[in-house]
Amino acid sequence: MFEIRTDLAVEEKESFQGGGKEITGVSLREWRKASSSIKLTEVVIFDEAGARAMGKPCGTYLTMEARQMGREDEDYHREVSGELAAQLRRMLKGLRKRRALPTADPLHVLAVGLGNPSVTPDALGPGVLGNLRVNRNLRAVNGPPSDGEEPVILSGIVPGVMAQTGMETAEIVGGILHETKPDLIIAVDALAARSIRRLGTTIQLTDTGIQPGSGVGNHRHSLTAEGLGIPVLAIGVPTVVGAAAIVYDTISAMIGALWSNVETKRMGDYVENLQPDEQYQLIRELLEPEFGQLYVTPPDIDQTVKRLSFTISEGIHMAFYENPQDGGEGGI
Amino acid sequence: MFEIRTDLAVEEKESFQGGGKEITGVSLREWRKASSSIKLTEVVIFDEAGARAMGKPCGTYLTMEARQMGREDEDYHREVSGELAAQLRRMLKGLRKRRALPTADPLHVLAVGLGNPSVTPDALGPGVLGNLRVNRNLRAVNGPPSDGEEPVILSGIVPGVMAQTGMETAEIVGGILHETKPDLIIAVDALAARSIRRLGTTIQLTDTGIQPGSGVGNHRHSLTAEGLGIPVLAIGVPTVVGAAAIVYDTISAMIGALWSNVETKRMGDYVENLQPDEQYQLIRELLEPEFGQLYVTPPDIDQTVKRLSFTISEGIHMAFYENPQDGGEGGI
Amino acid sequence: MFEIRTDLAVEEKESFQGGGKEITGVSLREWRKASSSIKLTEVVIFDEAGARAMGKPCGTYLTMEARQMGREDEDYHREVSGELAAQLRRMLKGLRKRRALPTADPLHVLAVGLGNPSVTPDALGPGVLGNLRVNRNLRAVNGPPSDGEEPVILSGIVPGVMAQTGMETAEIVGGILHETKPDLIIAVDALAARSIRRLGTTIQLTDTGIQPGSGVGNHRHSLTAEGLGIPVLAIGVPTVVGAAAIVYDTISAMIGALWSNVETKRMGDYVENLQPDEQYQLIRELLEPEFGQLYVTPPDIDQTVKRLSFTISEGIHMAFYENPQDGGEGGI
Amino acid sequence: MFEIRTDLAVEEKESFQGGGKEITGVSLREWRKASSSIKLTEVVIFDEAGARAMGKPCGTYLTMEARQMGREDEDYHREVSGELAAQLRRMLKGLRKRRALPTADPLHVLAVGLGNPSVTPDALGPGVLGNLRVNRNLRAVNGPPSDGEEPVILSGIVPGVMAQTGMETAEIVGGILHETKPDLIIAVDALAARSIRRLGTTIQLTDTGIQPGSGVGNHRHSLTAEGLGIPVLAIGVPTVVGAAAIVYDTISAMIGALWSNVETKRMGDYVENLQPDEQYQLIRELLEPEFGQLYVTPPDIDQTVKRLSFTISEGIHMAFYENPQDGGEGGI
Repeated sequence: MFEIRTDLAVEEKESFQGGGKEITGVSLREWRKASSSIKLTEVVIFDEAGARAMGKPCGTYLTMEARQMGREDEDYHREVSGELAAQLRRMLKGLRKRRALPTADPLHVLAVGLGNPSVTPDALGPGVLGNLRVNRNLRAVNGPPSDGEEPVILSGIVPGVMAQTGMETAEIVGGILHETKPDLIIAVDALAARSIRRLGTTIQLTDTGIQPGSGVGNHRHSLTAEGLGIPVLAIGVPTVVGAAAIVYDTISAMIGALWSNVETKRMGDYVENLQPDEQYQLIRELLEPEFGQLYVTPPDIDQTVKRLSFTISEGIHMAFYENPQDGGEGGI
Repeated sequence: MFEIRTDLAVEEKESFQGGGKEITGVSLREWRKASSSIKLTEVVIFDEAGARAMGKPCGTYLTMEARQMGREDEDYHREVSGELAAQLRRMLKGLRKRRALPTADPLHVLAVGLGNPSVTPDALGPGVLGNLRVNRNLRAVNGPPSDGEEPVILSGIVPGVMAQTGMETAEIVGGILHETKPDLIIAVDALAARSIRRLGTTIQLTDTGIQPGSGVGNHRHSLTAEGLGIPVLAIGVPTVVGAAAIVYDTISAMIGALWSNVETKRMGDYVENLQPDEQYQLIRELLEPEFGQLYVTPPDIDQTVKRLSFTISEGIHMAFYENPQDGGEGGI
Repeated sequence: MFEIRTDLAVEEKESFQGGGKEITGVSLREWRKASSSIKLTEVVIFDEAGARAMGKPCGTYLTMEARQMGREDEDYHREVSGELAAQLRRMLKGLRKRRALPTADPLHVLAVGLGNPSVTPDALGPGVLGNLRVNRNLRAVNGPPSDGEEPVILSGIVPGVMAQTGMETAEIVGGILHETKPDLIIAVDALAARSIRRLGTTIQLTDTGIQPGSGVGNHRHSLTAEGLGIPVLAIGVPTVVGAAAIVYDTISAMIGALWSNVETKRMGDYVENLQPDEQYQLIRELLEPEFGQLYVTPPDIDQTVKRLSFTISEGIHMAFYENPQDGGEGGI
Repeated sequence: MFEIRTDLAVEEKESFQGGGKEITGVSLREWRKASSSIKLTEVVIFDEAGARAMGKPCGTYLTMEARQMGREDEDYHREVSGELAAQLRRMLKGLRKRRALPTADPLHVLAVGLGNPSVTPDALGPGVLGNLRVNRNLRAVNGPPSDGEEPVILSGIVPGVMAQTGMETAEIVGGILHETKPDLIIAVDALAARSIRRLGTTIQLTDTGIQPGSGVGNHRHSLTAEGLGIPVLAIGVPTVVGAAAIVYDTISAMIGALWSNVETKRMGDYVENLQPDEQYQLIRELLEPEFGQLYVTPPDIDQTVKRLSFTISEGIHMAFYENPQDGGEGGI
């Protein structure tokens, strides 16, 4: 069994708009900060109809995109970290407004680095946690810092993957919540995209947590407010594309090409007349069953993961340890 | 502040016997299996007097020693794994007799790999867990194996160190216990010895768990039956010696040398006449305060840790997955 | 630009035989040892016509295959190591017969672990070298071992990848040859296959060295007897499939399916009537240019690479350090 | 056999000055940049008498020291990188004046990351190389950059350690020189200091290359202009102290303490009257022979090595890729 899926809400939305269809229950907004190369897109799924159409739960999905994210430019990555921090703060503000978080500092945050540290494209979460500066242990020993209160109590865990631990991630994280009682989880994970152009060039930030079946290698993570009882902000970067998605896209392109050819038009008509789910079924039968487990990734993925691990950990540091200078207002 | 300490009960016992003293509340037994180069030593601390004298809690401390453990000899390491498995089974039998464990299989075991995977001599626990074959996840999906019941349900975790997680190891492990309810913990840790001859050549197996302040780098682990509510078997290998221990030993040797010299006998007398705690105090004042944090380790520690990670994980596999062929009776 | 390629000669041969064609200049032989699950296939390319048809240089390509190689079965991996050792010895014997190697022991061998240790499916070569027991340094200090001559002087290098070193692998290895003058190179590399069923289940051993453009990530390695002046035995395991290969195969299957359908037969005829290179051209136009750089790999590739790194290093140890008990005669 | 040694010329010099002695053939200069917390010390050994006294070859040894180097302060590390770049440029200028380097750009530089990546305190060199941006490969493909000439052609190698490769580092590097003909080597290595206060807080930059027996674990590296035929700049950070050094220092302190005590003065006199080499001999006899191989290191050495790997790689980038803005004149 395989699944052609994307962990990016923005790609799910595009796949509908390609057909020129509006989706009820889903809004989309795009903007760009002045003098910035980062494009921001916010998809909000606000009711059950939208959730069904998108195959994703209600909530806000913010995407930050820039081609240059793939390059080794320290100043540029600093800009991305700053924007991530601003958007994290904006989401926190929203959660506080909805009374999902306490309004008084310090906020107690548990960062969770999902994925397998031994498999390069899955190692983003462990990489971010390796760069993260926690302080919960220092406070336990020294009390609050003498030079004014820090606004966060931060701890972090790399739970590992089920093949190594024999446990569901939600069991491990749920147990730690039980013992340490944080207010909020920040989960970092490598994602699967539909388009190879997204690999390493997009960051998705969402307040819906991690859904079962998402992430690289289908680890069946599930870290959601419903399951855990506290809000879960998820930060993800696509590092793989499912092998099935690539095959599907190429075959779709071939059908289009054949349809415009006189010789093969009749075949094109035939395939065109199939319903999308029949087309999907046809292709599915052709794909080998092993494909569901396979993923596509570029050979320089180690550099991408190393770089973005740094960019994201810096964004978290700026969001939680520094004084806010940017409201991250969302480009009104 | 520093501390001259050893995590090995056998070394603690030796330090008393060097002075020819018997310790009440502590028994010692040594043996060697026929045709084996492995020397076994069992120290049992059976009352509070013994515990006070030894600075370690009541329980059984079994040591397996062999010079060849430091070498790259696959057959030899197989023998060590086999002996470790036999002794693990013997301890399990003891726990079952005392009704500390359920008698019916399968036994649900959580393995915990303590230490910092990024610091070579502290990476034994994570190394063993990296080689461990867990099965709890498979049983959750497939049910019990069709070809007869496996005697264990095994899961495992590498909790990381407090400087990286901001949490005490006992908080993380305690939380996981709360969620997954195992019967037994097997904790694996790198240890600090007094003698450099022990580095990589000794395995200690104990039913007392992990005490606060033990291990490399003083991670303040504490994983005990009292704290966690289930038995904790601990497997450890010394990979470091505290810097203070080495200085102390050398100075002691120097005092001995000076005492036997006519010129310096008077000084020797003086130092000799100091009580042991005064001697300790003198040396302590000379030692720089940073010493408490420093450890001594050999440059080929990476090979030692890699090799013993394999030997110990194989021992655990043999103890729990295979049919017992050796009662590990303890050489009666 | 992309390339649909396989590093396995046995797959290249199969793609011809699928069309029922014999290739001049190429022989194929298959066998299985009694009571063994390992299937051996030997492709010999013995002239220029064969080399052109196969797109690979003249020489012997031996493949060892077994589904169980993917599993965690220590005894089985020992059997594979033994067979690899036997076949390595057979190739050495052949090279000595052809006077490409000195006949007197000790043989001076340089092992080269190709690939990027930071990218999991490309880390096979560095993994094997990490397990390898070299002895050249000991001989330099101690002279030949006192208990009889060892038949090999072994050294090893992990040259890294060009993106990290800025140098061609052949420059690094060529320089080391210049200084240390070994008789033979054993190069270990991760390979690209056509079929996902080969991933982690096949070992290829060849006396033709490493060709430019082979390996994962197209590192443009080239380590050949022509380039280096000494024989190069190459050991490889497929860990990836090119993304383009998977798309190509699926589309080929679709064309077959359409051709057998009345509605779409005409289209099938059209595509069928295209020459293979025209078909290839059609598909190539549909594929996105980025595909050439992408590869497909399974999510548990870390376990596969770890296991096979051990199996292959043991095979090399058995071939060179142990007394031959198996002539590896090739099942005549 | 052991050796009480330091790889830092500044410590060697201090050990003489402790005795109030001037050394002929050696000059020392200390300064601090305005508004900087970095203390610079330059030891120049300018003749054979100085070299004999210091146990180090003629040349310039520059030390940059600051307690804050041990902390996680990004701005501070940027300052250190900048100062390292300025001093690297100053050494290059000196080499060009002496016609040891070509005066026209681009300069062809080979960076060498010495040490064992698997042993944390020895992993500085491999860590720096992992962060280094080489460009020699890009120039080979694209030619010189279109937007003006870059002043450097940079390549890099991590040769590994003899226990893993079976080869001397100088053999590997010498071979690569033979093939790629760089103008200059930059070697990066972890060092052994005498004082634990130096660990992770000092960078030494020297134009004398790497001497046999220096570095962590006594790898018998030797990379010098005499041996290799081109200049070798070496960058090192102390990450260990030899166990013997710590014992020696403590015993020296004890002798001092005893000497000032009436009871023990006679013994103090006796030891005081021993010549330094007799003292050294006495202590040496007390130390166990295994000590020569042991080193002392702090438990958070992983963070130190990670941080300084970044600081040094950035310093190399600034020195070679950026336009000089700071002459690094040495604070006259």
